[in-house]
Amino acid sequence: MEKTVSSKIIHKGKNFDFLLDQVELPNKKYVNREIVDHPGAVAILPVTNDGKIVLINQYRYVTKKRILEIPAGTIEKGELIEKCAVRELKEETGYSTNHIIKMLSCYLAPGYSNEILHVFLAKELEKGEQKLEDDETISVQEYGYEEILTKIEDGSIIDAKTILSILFYLTRNNI
Amino acid sequence: MEKTVSSKIIHKGKNFDFLLDQVELPNKKYVNREIVDHPGAVAILPVTNDGKIVLINQYRYVTKKRILEIPAGTIEKGELIEKCAVRELKEETGYSTNHIIKMLSCYLAPGYSNEILHVFLAKELEKGEQKLEDDETISVQEYGYEEILTKIEDGSIIDAKTILSILFYLTRNNI
Repeated sequence: MEKTVSSKIIHKGKNFDFLLDQVELPNKKYVNREIVDHPGAVAILPVTNDGKIVLINQYRYVTKKRILEIPAGTIEKGELIEKCAVRELKEETGYSTNHIIKMLSCYLAPGYSNEILHVFLAKELEKGEQKLEDDETISVQEYGYEEILTKIEDGSIIDAKTILSILFYLTRNNI
Repeated sequence: MEKTVSSKIIHKGKNFDFLLDQVELPNKKYVNREIVDHPGAVAILPVTNDGKIVLINQYRYVTKKRILEIPAGTIEKGELIEKCAVRELKEETGYSTNHIIKMLSCYLAPGYSNEILHVFLAKELEKGEQKLEDDETISVQEYGYEEILTKIEDGSIIDAKTILSILFYLTRNNI
């Protein structure tokens, strides 16, 4: 158990804040904890009727390159996570659906971020148009299961939530 | 492609820094990007000779509870990642080995953190004593494959790197 002695907002961002907490450890020593204070996010694994997995290819500033990911986004204030999942799927891929199933929730970086990611499976997809934000340039790409496992093996897919979601889906037969 | 206009260190931390970058988008608009500037980390999936997976149970301040994870830690300056993996395994679980195999590397939160996690499999483990840091209180627990998959299914394991590493290992037969 670690006790919060003080908590300071270092920076308020658009989607999350940076905090600096002073913490008392069980051994009575004090340490600083730098924290990403995040409202949580959703990620969606979209699977088409003909068994293809839909990925998006987008430039990620911190990686300095385009990477392949499943669609995802931050939960807006007061938004239900299922609605957020359907919204982000539509915005980023153009696909609509009412058929989403919760797969799991997880912490991405519990050493410094309280972001919880809720992961959904989306099926019965209907094709439509993307609705991208100003700072998004996203292309949509679809892959078969074997092809996508090869991309995980050879390092072409390097995003943790994407690898996790695909492997979770493919190792379960009861969804 | 997004161009860095300016980059400011908001806070220098023990393991990583917080940055605020101003960025020019392809559409010539400007946005701020809040970034966790991280040196990278390793995670190790330890598998005992009798086929048990070794997890650690530790309090994580941001989650406000103890969670089950594979051992992991930040790469120290100038440290080889393989040495870091062997060191963190020893410190957190007490197990020593010379038998580590790289499984994959991934970004945990590419929306805001440049942390790359390098994931290793560790086998031929030899039991010894933990060497914990001041702020670590860690107990070591070992689980069979079926038991661990149940824990992922029922939400008892909620750490992304742990889920990802276990599923990656269990879906491959060639390691």
